[in-house]
Amino acid sequence: MTTKKVVIVGGGFAGLAAAKGLSSSSDVKITLIDKRNHHLFQPLLYQVAMAGLSPADIAAPIRSMLSGQDNACVVQGEVQSVNFDAQTVSVLPIEADASSADADDTAIAETTADNVAWDYLILACGAGHSYFGHDEWEPFAPGLKTLEQATEIRRRVLTAFERAERETDPERRKKQMTFVVVGGGPTGVELAGAIGEMSRHTLARDFRNVDARLARVILVEGGSRILPMFDQQLSSRATRDLEKLGVQVWNSSLVTDVSADGVRIGEEYIEAATVLWAAGVKASPLGERLGLSTDHVGRVCVNADLSVGDHARVFVAGDQACCKTDGKPLAGVAPVAMQQGRYLAKTILRDLQGQPREAFCYHDKGSMATIGRSRAIVQSGDRRITGFFAWWMWLVVHIYYLTGFRNRLFVVMSWAWSYLTWRRGARLIVGKPPESRPS
Amino acid sequence: MTTKKVVIVGGGFAGLAAAKGLSSSSDVKITLIDKRNHHLFQPLLYQVAMAGLSPADIAAPIRSMLSGQDNACVVQGEVQSVNFDAQTVSVLPIEADASSADADDTAIAETTADNVAWDYLILACGAGHSYFGHDEWEPFAPGLKTLEQATEIRRRVLTAFERAERETDPERRKKQMTFVVVGGGPTGVELAGAIGEMSRHTLARDFRNVDARLARVILVEGGSRILPMFDQQLSSRATRDLEKLGVQVWNSSLVTDVSADGVRIGEEYIEAATVLWAAGVKASPLGERLGLSTDHVGRVCVNADLSVGDHARVFVAGDQACCKTDGKPLAGVAPVAMQQGRYLAKTILRDLQGQPREAFCYHDKGSMATIGRSRAIVQSGDRRITGFFAWWMWLVVHIYYLTGFRNRLFVVMSWAWSYLTWRRGARLIVGKPPESRPS
Repeated sequence: MTTKKVVIVGGGFAGLAAAKGLSSSSDVKITLIDKRNHHLFQPLLYQVAMAGLSPADIAAPIRSMLSGQDNACVVQGEVQSVNFDAQTVSVLPIEADASSADADDTAIAETTADNVAWDYLILACGAGHSYFGHDEWEPFAPGLKTLEQATEIRRRVLTAFERAERETDPERRKKQMTFVVVGGGPTGVELAGAIGEMSRHTLARDFRNVDARLARVILVEGGSRILPMFDQQLSSRATRDLEKLGVQVWNSSLVTDVSADGVRIGEEYIEAATVLWAAGVKASPLGERLGLSTDHVGRVCVNADLSVGDHARVFVAGDQACCKTDGKPLAGVAPVAMQQGRYLAKTILRDLQGQPREAFCYHDKGSMATIGRSRAIVQSGDRRITGFFAWWMWLVVHIYYLTGFRNRLFVVMSWAWSYLTWRRGARLIVGKPPESRPS
Repeated sequence: MTTKKVVIVGGGFAGLAAAKGLSSSSDVKITLIDKRNHHLFQPLLYQVAMAGLSPADIAAPIRSMLSGQDNACVVQGEVQSVNFDAQTVSVLPIEADASSADADDTAIAETTADNVAWDYLILACGAGHSYFGHDEWEPFAPGLKTLEQATEIRRRVLTAFERAERETDPERRKKQMTFVVVGGGPTGVELAGAIGEMSRHTLARDFRNVDARLARVILVEGGSRILPMFDQQLSSRATRDLEKLGVQVWNSSLVTDVSADGVRIGEEYIEAATVLWAAGVKASPLGERLGLSTDHVGRVCVNADLSVGDHARVFVAGDQACCKTDGKPLAGVAPVAMQQGRYLAKTILRDLQGQPREAFCYHDKGSMATIGRSRAIVQSGDRRITGFFAWWMWLVVHIYYLTGFRNRLFVVMSWAWSYLTWRRGARLIVGKPPESRPS
């Protein structure tokens, strides 16, 4: 049998799980393509934004994660197009757009837009934020999907306190001390809880002119309650926990405008220097660009075996896929992506052995969200757990899935240190705001 | 006695040492002004650039370092001018230049350019890089003074290997695999040694198409030998150690041109995608802007008690000061800055008690430089130490002086992990190149 070429686009949870699931097979040659050089443990990204962890604690070079796997090679580049007939993908080296490099490099980029051949293709390009048709809000309300966005959010939150400390006008000071988080899903809840906790504990002693504890944090949710994927009871508990940290939870509230000065929520206008976006999700535009059938947020509609349309050897997995169970699409969370990646590895191996395919079936082990120190909610089957024990479960699960011994060790130590001292280790303001920010 | 206002400009080694030296006095009120929100442990900055440490490991918020000191407050801002008659400094809030913020913030900046009054003024603004009149080289050969520069260097070095992996043309691949470090002082030696070590050990297993061990690293020094502040014998030893890591040391070589494609060294032209600058130093421009007497690199000439000209209560310390002992200016290193900061705190306290001033006297405990894993040189008085033991001394001294328990713990752990696994934990390519880079 000839070696089959498997091309995986995206080094997130789904792509990596697929690559690792194929590690023992000498019948395949894997090429993993990613725009980034690192795999990112997104469930802890909000802790980088909130100065609890360093970027390197939750990210690792994809190259190094696969360095021991001889049947895999890694390419840093962006997929431009897919030729389904010729079975190739065209990959643009990453400099061409991500780092607008010098003249000479552009020349390289032009000459080497590679065509990579595949027998099997897995698209797992993830998702970004959606501003519901208001992309002009993005500069004022950054989302949280990349390390750069996380350090940008950290910069904005810490800078707001610095400005408040210097400000003498009470109205303007109040504006600097007002933080609005849009979106009541797990990320929004974690961000709002962390700002509340940071202002009340970590920063309280650091300032002389302002009382950081007076910071106002508003969590805005369009639906009737936060964390709608959890039971009503747990969502109420999370609301109470947030309120204990000084976070105001506004349910059934729609954001109608965002500017540098604040947010309009229905009829009300809130002056706020810092607005963070954790609301809509939009899948990678690649699916639409390839002309695949997508749902309203750009996710590619897949068959029961995660293949696409008539292309039996083209799969889509992770946040980029719209995979329905009981008529409802699966959520864009890490466990779904990992199970899909492992499933695809198994499916390809079964194909090669001439065995029939099975349908993908998601084993839901439950959901969890944390709301600051010692508080979390966990829902698994019929069980509902809250408070300190839920928080411990949250810690253990996240450490368990975190990739690499070094990362686990360092994250555990950072958490232990923060827990004992009430401090956050990575309170650095670095970098400049992105160019897209209006001047 | 009325409380005396002490204004310290700069939160580096000198400024912080002065602030801490005054901590026990209730007769002074300290205002520490810095452009940055963090103190940076510069001696380890090259390890951030070389992916061994995270930014948060070697930096800490100045605010938090002084949060327990009731007589001190911290202002994030940039000093625009000093009025020596009225005894005030004019401070521009930092947004106005460092983060080109939105329209509303600029308005704040305009209205609040504060005047801060002082009875004693300490300038400790540090130094940046000098390109010997060729500032146009900077985009092609970044220096290493800030965390942003360190992550930019990390991005460039790692990206060069990524490009080499993808490149098929042998000449172009060779260019990507060529690294030139300009300047044979401790920083240049540490950078060159770390690139050599990283390519030979850390990255060797990660790539499929290129052999990272074939990377060419050239250290260019204008003088007749590297590390001129050490004995000839130690400088030869360092050269041999570098050569063992595959670094070519070019002494008596002057850089005459730097471009995106490479470096001209005398008559020879080296094609190199990555050029790093560790050569000239230029003090903060503030000294010249204030019309103070400066030397040829912009350092302010100080009296024996570090005061300036006729201003008995204006001091300059650290890299910004030109402080001569035996006719030779003291080197711009951390021990000098720390001793000067402590000396100034003592001098101010003596002033307040009506005691006469003593001249500043530097106690030279020795110099050290490291050249990759298990190799270093130490010179203290007549003693010369090399090899493994010198490297251990280097580790202990740097850990001892690193600020904060958390940082020490995390750096020790990162080093232990790297030492045992030959890996580097922070191999992330993040961010885009600065706008100043030509497109």
